[in-house]
Amino acid sequence: MSQHPIKQLIEQADEAINQEDFDTLLAMYTEDALLVIKPGVYAIGKVQIREAFQRIATYFEHTLVVKQVEMEILETGDTALVLAKTLVTSGNHPAMERKATYVFRREAGGTWLCAIDNSYGHDLLEGKA
Amino acid sequence: MSQHPIKQLIEQADEAINQEDFDTLLAMYTEDALLVIKPGVYAIGKVQIREAFQRIATYFEHTLVVKQVEMEILETGDTALVLAKTLVTSGNHPAMERKATYVFRREAGGTWLCAIDNSYGHDLLEGKA
Repeated sequence: MSQHPIKQLIEQADEAINQEDFDTLLAMYTEDALLVIKPGVYAIGKVQIREAFQRIATYFEHTLVVKQVEMEILETGDTALVLAKTLVTSGNHPAMERKATYVFRREAGGTWLCAIDNSYGHDLLEGKA
Repeated sequence: MSQHPIKQLIEQADEAINQEDFDTLLAMYTEDALLVIKPGVYAIGKVQIREAFQRIATYFEHTLVVKQVEMEILETGDTALVLAKTLVTSGNHPAMERKATYVFRREAGGTWLCAIDNSYGHDLLEGKA
């Protein structure tokens, strides 16, 4: 059974994060993609997203391993919503399980790119007024 | 302070659901929108979505009241991800709080429309292999 192309992309993105291969990683985002760094703090566009991943790699002392353990893809037309259970482990922090939410857009050539990357899911709402 | 247009749209959609004003409600969806009826069961396109809302109204014996109690909108370019805490009450079932996830697309004329409506959020992943 062939994998959904978005599932393959996310696996490649995880591998690129774990290898700190930011060129490969950045190629999977739209030009104006939004990455949630932490609730209320966003990186917008490739320059900011690259800087954010570099800081994240440093924060985890270059031992970060990201892996999706479950995933559901809701796709219609050129838009897809991905709901994932994401396992974040590293040498210097306790393991975390996150309910990540990604939005992908299909470009004119047929390629899916990530437009919104929110690894916090609904935790963004915690503590909001 | 002016409200985000998507927040206004969602309030109008909730009001339309509560009033069973399906013409107003359906105008807020893209032609090929995807609505999660329950995990694994989807309505795709306006005809199926209208039927789904009619069945939902019957199921709740025309006493359904939907309300968003918290909301975060992540917007970039023509794509927006909405994370909401949604309160669902009715005369014949216990109240439910759901972590809803919506994707909106901005059309050529500047109007935002709902492309993916998943009121179950990450609960879709529960029980998945």
